[in-house]
Amino acid sequence: MAYKTLDDSTIVDYARSKTDVFPAGAQLEGKEFGDGNLNLIFRVTDTGTGKSIVIKQALPHARIDDSIVTPLERARIESEMLVLHDKYAPGLAPEIYFYDPDMYAIGMQDLADHQVLRQAMIEGKRFPGLAEHLGDFVAKSTFATTDVGMDQQDKKRMVANFINPELCKITEDLIFSEPYFDAPGNKIDPEIRERAEENVRDTAYRKEVAILKEKFMTQAQALIHGDLHTGSVFVKEGSTKAFDPEFGFFGPIGFDLGLIMGNLIPNHASQLWHKRDDADDRAAYRAWIEEVFAGIWTRFDKTFRDLWKQNVKTPMESNPAYLDDYMARLFSDAIGYAATAMVRRIVGLAQVKDIRSIPDAEVRAKAQIQVLDIGREFTMRRTEYRDIDEVVETIRKHTV
Amino acid sequence: MAYKTLDDSTIVDYARSKTDVFPAGAQLEGKEFGDGNLNLIFRVTDTGTGKSIVIKQALPHARIDDSIVTPLERARIESEMLVLHDKYAPGLAPEIYFYDPDMYAIGMQDLADHQVLRQAMIEGKRFPGLAEHLGDFVAKSTFATTDVGMDQQDKKRMVANFINPELCKITEDLIFSEPYFDAPGNKIDPEIRERAEENVRDTAYRKEVAILKEKFMTQAQALIHGDLHTGSVFVKEGSTKAFDPEFGFFGPIGFDLGLIMGNLIPNHASQLWHKRDDADDRAAYRAWIEEVFAGIWTRFDKTFRDLWKQNVKTPMESNPAYLDDYMARLFSDAIGYAATAMVRRIVGLAQVKDIRSIPDAEVRAKAQIQVLDIGREFTMRRTEYRDIDEVVETIRKHTV
Repeated sequence: MAYKTLDDSTIVDYARSKTDVFPAGAQLEGKEFGDGNLNLIFRVTDTGTGKSIVIKQALPHARIDDSIVTPLERARIESEMLVLHDKYAPGLAPEIYFYDPDMYAIGMQDLADHQVLRQAMIEGKRFPGLAEHLGDFVAKSTFATTDVGMDQQDKKRMVANFINPELCKITEDLIFSEPYFDAPGNKIDPEIRERAEENVRDTAYRKEVAILKEKFMTQAQALIHGDLHTGSVFVKEGSTKAFDPEFGFFGPIGFDLGLIMGNLIPNHASQLWHKRDDADDRAAYRAWIEEVFAGIWTRFDKTFRDLWKQNVKTPMESNPAYLDDYMARLFSDAIGYAATAMVRRIVGLAQVKDIRSIPDAEVRAKAQIQVLDIGREFTMRRTEYRDIDEVVETIRKHTV
Repeated sequence: MAYKTLDDSTIVDYARSKTDVFPAGAQLEGKEFGDGNLNLIFRVTDTGTGKSIVIKQALPHARIDDSIVTPLERARIESEMLVLHDKYAPGLAPEIYFYDPDMYAIGMQDLADHQVLRQAMIEGKRFPGLAEHLGDFVAKSTFATTDVGMDQQDKKRMVANFINPELCKITEDLIFSEPYFDAPGNKIDPEIRERAEENVRDTAYRKEVAILKEKFMTQAQALIHGDLHTGSVFVKEGSTKAFDPEFGFFGPIGFDLGLIMGNLIPNHASQLWHKRDDADDRAAYRAWIEEVFAGIWTRFDKTFRDLWKQNVKTPMESNPAYLDDYMARLFSDAIGYAATAMVRRIVGLAQVKDIRSIPDAEVRAKAQIQVLDIGREFTMRRTEYRDIDEVVETIRKHTV
């Protein structure tokens, strides 16, 4: 079937033709509700039962032929990633009903009853089980495509299928380069300029960031989400769903862990402001964030080790001493990438509402400097920490 | 032009049509002289001037269609590698006159006046400049495809073009797995069985080998030769040419360094036998091998650093502290991979004439154990050595 842009008049027939999620003869309604430039997003509802699904279609835009290739390739990667996340980590990513590569359309679970985690945390909400869900998501979604989780030759072919040069370039620039020199896109509040420049002058620190960048660019360890910050996670009571995996490629597993762990820290620092009228609440929410931060690693570590032991078949990888070493390296990577994920939110182009919504410049600067200090210490000590509790001590030390 | 198998009756017309290496109207003669199963190898000579070239054509074999794909894909990778080696490291690989992807044929410099380095070393020959040539070859041929040597997005597309699952699998099995467990293909002389089993029981050692294997399987650092042992190098006085790059893929640069450095060691150990009647000669040849071993690293280090400094444009990679760290990691990798390259030659499936040609079982076993001891020490100490002289000390210590 050739590509054709869907609209409100064709979406119902399309939905009926592509999925058996609705019973035959169901009364369906469909409507576009997205506000993006690259995609159409429809909700299709069975008016009898109230059950709904979301259909997302990538747009080729009204552009000349050459420039069409990239957005559609990006849609292919995102759709294939969504299919794999639903397969490897069912329940922890949107359920996928169909993927239609000709139409660049994907049918998935409607998450209208969920909320984006970043916003929920700004509102001070807590979600029991969040750490376990996130730890399991990273463990299950990545283990399956390691050299222990799948055939090593198939993996190499899969690496080629998921090269993602354009979106990796965004990460390389915005996370691993611009925050560490005087880049035109940086946004540095005057109150923290001096502290930000300290980082730029620190060649030992910049060396460690360059090593993390190099690993991001060269280590095809597993198929990772690639953009797992708190804005890429939907939550509701008892449910956590990772989404928006269009940055997916074969990279270091620690990058997914680090992004989600590191993006908790600006919120932690922002408690200076949000709960300023209630010291007890502020302390309690910080303690919950620290629990989630540590809990993601702890759960990941357990689930990943279990999967390894259940699946390993090859002699060299069956050596328990090797697994311990592998996990220790994932741990250091996670802490290092957590640092890069938080620092770019303070001085880089794409900042976060957690910090930006603090109206008082002095309080905001104090929170920003806390994040920068934690980031630098994480980076420099990442191979020395003996366990996750020592890492949490670093957070506490800088946020007294 | 569709693929057609060449033969002695068509090769002259083909050569004339594909290259301007011969003057118009030259009297040409051509003849197949290869003895391989996968390729035809022709020499085409201008009978007037005596100038000759070699044309290598990959064979699809008389097989069913499905099985044809792999050997021709292998021929594509080999040909594209040869073209790139001639471009990046001119003079240090065969000169390439043409590459015809439709015919899977490549026209290259005739190296009939050269000799394979392994055989030359068995004959006790020395080649001034060998270390510098090999160090330059690895530096130049790999630097060009690092993230500093080329555009980072183009590199990712090139990674996909050079995935090489079948040949990587051979390396993963024969170099990084089978020598470290009781694999059916291993060939272990009874005199060294006990020493070989010591390695298999040593979980700390096997862990380090697994780490080197993991890096080989996941680190897309640069396009490497992938099989640069002394049987893949042609030499004559003043000339060194790397060839047979069909194992090429994006892997760790240290693997190329390690393979060529490590393959010198079985010859070093074999001096126990070959020069047994002349202790001075034996000592002198060993000293020359040690010089080449150290010289490859020293020259590589210098040339690679020079290329880096001349080409680096990005802020993070311009930090001299990062370059020093990068080189220190290449150094450890080289020593680690040298170890794996020598150990597989002693206990694995594909052994080498340097050692195998020792007729006396007791002398041979002594030489074999020297190589195993050097290999283990290299592996365990690879991140601790401060310089290449300390590494040479390890060779000397085990070969007194």
